[in-house]
Amino acid sequence: MPLVLDAAAQDLLFREARTASTFTDEPVTEEQIRAVYDLVKYGPTASNQSPLRITLVRSPEARERLVRHMAEGNRPKTAAAPLSAVLSTDNEFHARLPRLFPHAPQVKDVLYADRAGRERSALLNGALQAAYFIVGVRAAGLAAGPMSGFDAAGVRKEFLDDDHTPLMVVNIGRPGPGAWRPRLPRLDIDEVITTV
Amino acid sequence: MPLVLDAAAQDLLFREARTASTFTDEPVTEEQIRAVYDLVKYGPTASNQSPLRITLVRSPEARERLVRHMAEGNRPKTAAAPLSAVLSTDNEFHARLPRLFPHAPQVKDVLYADRAGRERSALLNGALQAAYFIVGVRAAGLAAGPMSGFDAAGVRKEFLDDDHTPLMVVNIGRPGPGAWRPRLPRLDIDEVITTV
Repeated sequence: MPLVLDAAAQDLLFREARTASTFTDEPVTEEQIRAVYDLVKYGPTASNQSPLRITLVRSPEARERLVRHMAEGNRPKTAAAPLSAVLSTDNEFHARLPRLFPHAPQVKDVLYADRAGRERSALLNGALQAAYFIVGVRAAGLAAGPMSGFDAAGVRKEFLDDDHTPLMVVNIGRPGPGAWRPRLPRLDIDEVITTV
Repeated sequence: MPLVLDAAAQDLLFREARTASTFTDEPVTEEQIRAVYDLVKYGPTASNQSPLRITLVRSPEARERLVRHMAEGNRPKTAAAPLSAVLSTDNEFHARLPRLFPHAPQVKDVLYADRAGRERSALLNGALQAAYFIVGVRAAGLAAGPMSGFDAAGVRKEFLDDDHTPLMVVNIGRPGPGAWRPRLPRLDIDEVITTV
């Protein structure tokens, strides 16, 4: 068997997991989110920099503010989700490296001295962590609905600050009726993988 | 139970999975890589853009060429791995959108008309897919060793072209003796997650 992961877990995390656009009213609990984080925090990042930050938009008032910044096509599903998460990068992540990477604290100054370089590294590594988070939401038996269609400057001003860059917004909940269309095609392996 | 995923799968993918720096001689087969791709290809990307490309560096000659472009600290482990993968983004991914996103082929021109915007979107979404790939390698019972420390211009010139941007190099194999140091600390949940 080429895969060790059991078939039920393959289905839960990838094969049957889908990006949901409708949700039931069932709340997503703090306990579920804590369990997701406690699992996916172990996913690797460069120099263990761990730049991802998560803003849970839970109160009705905050949810209204978020919906206003979403692209029109993303508003109904964001309004319908029991919980949405604004995923962002902390572009000042290097401040915590002496604690996160204690055996080589010099990387803070050697690799991450300039802000533009940090922003690119935080984008790459924050996106890795965003994917671990999506997988983790699925591991909790919930559907994730990641979205790039929103006013990034507006979301930043509303929920973040100048040191944080929004990566995506993720709706989280139990899929409702008609939560997805048929699965879209994927690239053939020979379009993606070459061997040298 | 806040997580639905069984404990063995949690351990395999996150809790006990580690970034390896030494490897046994056991080869990584084409069948294993195909199984990984066939699982993780379902991970979501914006507009199903699927920008990740994977160059498997397998031949001894190509592996030597790769090692020369790695940062000094990454050379021994890259030389020791049975297989390394150069993960890159296809910045011309939009050419395939009429097939990948057939219900809204106009996004090719509406969202992805300019190259700089495509490069940023491909970086974000390619990194998501890189994380799915790392999780998939672990699902195959293998250790992944993702690395950012390499000469990106050199790797691009050696293995890619101007339309592809290297994201990372990942060593793949069975962990060898002393494959990792003790686990590094992670951020407390309250440093990462805020609720509004």
